[in-house]
Amino acid sequence: MLGRAYERENCSAARALEVIGERWSLLILRNAMYAGSRRFNQFQRSLGIATNILQARLEWFIESGLMELRAAADGVQEYVLTAKGQDLEPVILALSAWGDRYAAPEGPPIRYQHAQCGGAIRQHLECETCHEAPKPGAIMATPGPGMS
Amino acid sequence: MLGRAYERENCSAARALEVIGERWSLLILRNAMYAGSRRFNQFQRSLGIATNILQARLEWFIESGLMELRAAADGVQEYVLTAKGQDLEPVILALSAWGDRYAAPEGPPIRYQHAQCGGAIRQHLECETCHEAPKPGAIMATPGPGMS
Repeated sequence: MLGRAYERENCSAARALEVIGERWSLLILRNAMYAGSRRFNQFQRSLGIATNILQARLEWFIESGLMELRAAADGVQEYVLTAKGQDLEPVILALSAWGDRYAAPEGPPIRYQHAQCGGAIRQHLECETCHEAPKPGAIMATPGPGMS
Repeated sequence: MLGRAYERENCSAARALEVIGERWSLLILRNAMYAGSRRFNQFQRSLGIATNILQARLEWFIESGLMELRAAADGVQEYVLTAKGQDLEPVILALSAWGDRYAAPEGPPIRYQHAQCGGAIRQHLECETCHEAPKPGAIMATPGPGMS
């Protein structure tokens, strides 16, 4: 696992990538969120991923609190997203939106819809003060309270 | 580079990860967006990254159209984000928001602010139809036109 791969980086994006930046990590989480995968075999079959890699990723997700283990009624262990894991949804949706735009010549392979009404889900950037959507290049990064 | 690492996956998030899923990729793009980095040495010094890795990433960014090469007035080659590269901003902001919440015990190290008014930038999910923010677990994935 990446662990402290970006040790010099005092940046929350780098910290997040240390948790979910390894190959397959975000696709495993995507299948937990949207394909109903909970069991080792479900992840393995839907992703076609090597079992040793899948095992390592799932163990890391438990260790880092993105998933928790639950025994199902039939005794099989299930890997269930925690709120911390579910909160990675905007990362997956941001990647999907970019891929839909630049890497989906035949149109979006997957649509993300609101379960309640079927409407398309969109992701927006907004300024909390003036409520405008920032134009490209109009976001600046400044040191926050956690900057060492 | 990841290239066709997720070949079985008909998913825009996987396609995006094939372009920017390698270690350091998103942090190089972050520094291009927010730290003003354009030159090889600027990226190298700010990230402390091995020069062979940085070279490979920048060449891939050119090849995949996230950056373009421009000669500066002093003749030095600069790596400049294209619109396609700049459009990865929501991915970096989504990672940062998650890291601020779960991996920044001393508060956000970096604040993202609107250059025009200084307001904090927030990212929202919204349903295009009912305009509600979807609750956790209330987004469903369905096959779109690009699903094979």
